[in-house]
Amino acid sequence: MQAQTILSFETRGPALYDITGEVARWVRETGVANGLLTLFCQHTSASLLITENASPAVHRDMLRWLGRLAPEGRDYEHAAEGPDDMPAHLKSALTGNSLTIPVGDGRPLLGTWQGIYLAEHRHAPHRRKVVAHVIGD
Amino acid sequence: MQAQTILSFETRGPALYDITGEVARWVRETGVANGLLTLFCQHTSASLLITENASPAVHRDMLRWLGRLAPEGRDYEHAAEGPDDMPAHLKSALTGNSLTIPVGDGRPLLGTWQGIYLAEHRHAPHRRKVVAHVIGD
Amino acid sequence: MQAQTILSFETRGPALYDITGEVARWVRETGVANGLLTLFCQHTSASLLITENASPAVHRDMLRWLGRLAPEGRDYEHAAEGPDDMPAHLKSALTGNSLTIPVGDGRPLLGTWQGIYLAEHRHAPHRRKVVAHVIGD
Repeated sequence: MQAQTILSFETRGPALYDITGEVARWVRETGVANGLLTLFCQHTSASLLITENASPAVHRDMLRWLGRLAPEGRDYEHAAEGPDDMPAHLKSALTGNSLTIPVGDGRPLLGTWQGIYLAEHRHAPHRRKVVAHVIGD
Repeated sequence: MQAQTILSFETRGPALYDITGEVARWVRETGVANGLLTLFCQHTSASLLITENASPAVHRDMLRWLGRLAPEGRDYEHAAEGPDDMPAHLKSALTGNSLTIPVGDGRPLLGTWQGIYLAEHRHAPHRRKVVAHVIGD
Repeated sequence: MQAQTILSFETRGPALYDITGEVARWVRETGVANGLLTLFCQHTSASLLITENASPAVHRDMLRWLGRLAPEGRDYEHAAEGPDDMPAHLKSALTGNSLTIPVGDGRPLLGTWQGIYLAEHRHAPHRRKVVAHVIGD
């Protein structure tokens, strides 16, 4: 038994957007009780990330840290699309495009403190697409 | 054909804990000969990692490198749970929570020099849970 | 319905090698129209990465950035296999060994600007193996 959809999210600048609820709701609707969920972000300047869901300060520290590892002020060769474009590709490569999460009792088996986040790395507003696929029974 | 379990590991401070043997044993017991294995760490301050299995020096260099990229001494906004907490979230985001490995002949198809590691990033002892899921025939 | 193969790639030094075409061709040949594709790199000094497929400058910036995060000149404890060996393990840990991509209409559901790359981190020529596994119907 399989189901697949494309989830769409509006972003307004660099932040971690919590998509846990929408993902869990879709998994429940598919009727798959036990299986594997894959999420795949179809972009190279936004990415997927699992991190702590309790403290907004964690998210702010995470964004500042990504900004130090891949700073916007640096002299990149690829700069035609703006100073935030190449850093966005680097941050996406670091955090990754795909997540696979086991499903049990009809829900993604996240730990208590885990949330699923769409990490936006560009400043301009974007519409981001995440393919969700579940396989199981 | 599917099987799912939660593997539990005791950690005693920052290190790479080799879980290859326990994972391979569980896959064999499920009877799945050909398929996909997903491992998912249910924490945000410990993570999963595949790296070289031959040299302990590689693991020590890896931990020192993670410590340089996400140093404990820095002035993080999120510091209430101790100086090793925010760096642990950052190291987990960098290395990731989930691994998917093809299975053939009843075993994870790792390369000769690859081991599967639970990376602990906190100093205090912890009990860490890894959901293992295999699907195939 | 499942299919599995090992794809082999010759590398000649640090670069991002575009494997999108070969992967997509293999998926098409399996006859799986809808499902999950997993790619798994069986090495610890080469890795898999999804990034922008349009600009070679993005790839050069990406390699320079990896070189700054895990520089070859540093004093690593593990240095017996050459100055590029330990940095290669670090870069592989950062970018990761496995990718899972949903399949629809018989092809990996990549975004318009996404390519799948084998990232080689060693200087000497290597033959790299990537296990490809598809499950679906």
